[in-house]
Amino acid sequence: MPSEPRPLPDPDTACEPRRIDVALGKRSYPIWVGAGLLDRAGERLGPLLALPRVLLVTDETLIATGHVERLERSLTAAGIALHRLVVPAGERSKSMTVLGDLLERMLALGVERKMTVIALGGGVIGDLAGFAAAVLLRGVDFVQIPTTLLAQVDSAVGGKTGINARAGKNLIGAFHQPRAVLIDTSVLDTLPRRELGAGYAEVVKYGCILDLSFFEWLQTGAAGLLAGDEEARVRAICRSLEIKAEVVAQDEHETTGHRALLNFGHTFAHAYENIAGYGGTLLHGEAVSVGTVQAARLSAALGHAPEGDAERLRAHLDSLGMPTEPRHLREEGFKADAVLEAMSRDKKVEGGRLTFVLWRGIGRAFVDRTVPIDALEALLIEHDRVG
Amino acid sequence: MPSEPRPLPDPDTACEPRRIDVALGKRSYPIWVGAGLLDRAGERLGPLLALPRVLLVTDETLIATGHVERLERSLTAAGIALHRLVVPAGERSKSMTVLGDLLERMLALGVERKMTVIALGGGVIGDLAGFAAAVLLRGVDFVQIPTTLLAQVDSAVGGKTGINARAGKNLIGAFHQPRAVLIDTSVLDTLPRRELGAGYAEVVKYGCILDLSFFEWLQTGAAGLLAGDEEARVRAICRSLEIKAEVVAQDEHETTGHRALLNFGHTFAHAYENIAGYGGTLLHGEAVSVGTVQAARLSAALGHAPEGDAERLRAHLDSLGMPTEPRHLREEGFKADAVLEAMSRDKKVEGGRLTFVLWRGIGRAFVDRTVPIDALEALLIEHDRVG
Repeated sequence: MPSEPRPLPDPDTACEPRRIDVALGKRSYPIWVGAGLLDRAGERLGPLLALPRVLLVTDETLIATGHVERLERSLTAAGIALHRLVVPAGERSKSMTVLGDLLERMLALGVERKMTVIALGGGVIGDLAGFAAAVLLRGVDFVQIPTTLLAQVDSAVGGKTGINARAGKNLIGAFHQPRAVLIDTSVLDTLPRRELGAGYAEVVKYGCILDLSFFEWLQTGAAGLLAGDEEARVRAICRSLEIKAEVVAQDEHETTGHRALLNFGHTFAHAYENIAGYGGTLLHGEAVSVGTVQAARLSAALGHAPEGDAERLRAHLDSLGMPTEPRHLREEGFKADAVLEAMSRDKKVEGGRLTFVLWRGIGRAFVDRTVPIDALEALLIEHDRVG
Repeated sequence: MPSEPRPLPDPDTACEPRRIDVALGKRSYPIWVGAGLLDRAGERLGPLLALPRVLLVTDETLIATGHVERLERSLTAAGIALHRLVVPAGERSKSMTVLGDLLERMLALGVERKMTVIALGGGVIGDLAGFAAAVLLRGVDFVQIPTTLLAQVDSAVGGKTGINARAGKNLIGAFHQPRAVLIDTSVLDTLPRRELGAGYAEVVKYGCILDLSFFEWLQTGAAGLLAGDEEARVRAICRSLEIKAEVVAQDEHETTGHRALLNFGHTFAHAYENIAGYGGTLLHGEAVSVGTVQAARLSAALGHAPEGDAERLRAHLDSLGMPTEPRHLREEGFKADAVLEAMSRDKKVEGGRLTFVLWRGIGRAFVDRTVPIDALEALLIEHDRVG
């Protein structure tokens, strides 16, 4: 652990962070959003910890960027003892094997129920460490410090944790809400452009499902967000999280169907990812980018929405260089029957029927369990052609 | 699946079962206790299932006794589709490896969130299948049908599920309440005498912690219970479950300390089991039998309770041929320092202090986090001698 003194945070980036609350009764928690929060994590988290002792789960990538060191320095300065637990970077770490190994390493440290797990990393780290916290001693507290745009606007908030199974992604897991989420927008500076774009797919999703005016702002604001404009970042992230927090508060455990709106584009995306495998060739956000366009097209094909809205979404994503066709995800595209089969294994199956999130236009998503298989198939066939 | 007709249940054993409710708000559930319930499981469970499709988790032992066939026949007759999933018998199945394999097999069947997992077996099956249900698709319903006395009076009720880790028992798991518990007392007829005795240790524990008159009744009633007297069985099981249900309702997630009363004798027991390994040489209930006597002795040594109460408990257990000294568990006994070390790894550590459940006399247990290590050590040294 570092012991040398360091300069105070830059006053320009050390302004008061914005706060969004996830209202879940006694499981409510704050999300803080601001530049430089990593350096003030100790003072923010200190008052929330039942014991000043944390298990920090992260991966090598985060060590290379210096983020781990910044966080550890801040925690140590606040008198918080920590153990660093490093797992391999990448989706393959969301496995039973890595989970089992991580839990055994935690237990070998002599953990107690009142300790807190901190997840520092992207969606993989958050999902894995969150699930480990959910099952360690039947549940300990955890804190999310997401370092990718995708994790910041989506996976770190809402309490979904888990790992992948042979049959598909996130099929094993738990609902386990964090005690707090700390979002340092400055970490996006070190994020590869491809990952930034992938995360943006989830940002635009919030506009698609519930907020036309947010979508309209993104049509001009997205370029600044992706170029690193701080104000645009904070605005996009906060609006995304406000929408997510409200949806989660209404349907924490995905029982009423309202939370399912967040899965706009995801029935397609999960199928693409399932077929491509989880080796990192395909990023989740990229699959979502294509999936949202497909969901919009399916909505139009079924007469729920004007075709122009699907086209508007496609054009916006295209203008940012994001994938919008299955063949953008992999050269050979995806065969319709393979996609259908992968969809049927997804956990969004109920009574043998697929669940789709469609829209009546931008900002007006709804859940549909009555999609006729032939309309779906026709869409898949039309867009799986490689050309 | 069996299709031949079978005779109606014997009217003598088919009387209305007794019902105990576990009051946990919207997670409340019934426990039914009666002889022959296995043959009427379909009609009991049918109305509780969100979908008439279940995943039945059991082990070879239960197939050999015919219990699996009885249950499957009853479910099938009620129009409930089922998949049978068999895991190896014994404590070693409470592992990450067996859990992962079980979950993959479930997922390969094409499970949905509204399906229900049924655990038919002893504590190992209940803990493992319950944990699998807790994490399958982030949580599906499950039903406990315990077939050992220990599981019937203890582990099947209260929502504790989990597996073992290298560092100790039940260190990985979840609180996941069943939707119902079905207790068929007739299955105890096929239970080996040694396991029946081990289960009895948990029955007597309820008297020890909260009910002197139950303890007094057991001093004469236990012999009948162990010999298979139906009335004694139902009375002992129901009283045990009433006490457990009340304690769990007051402190579901073991946060106030009240639920910890159920761990009377268990700080010792877990240490013995941890040292002996989980190979089946030592039964949990046997370790608990010795552990309760040790907890009573420690209470006396610390001046909390009369020595006579510890002696009264020891004499009662002795009279039934149950182990009451560490050396009864294994010939060489347990070294005090090994027991202390195992205790320090137990999840009942808080702020670095061991938690003990002691008593002020039979029926008056309390939680003590201030046990001086030297008094504990003296007790362990006195009783680890082999004589």
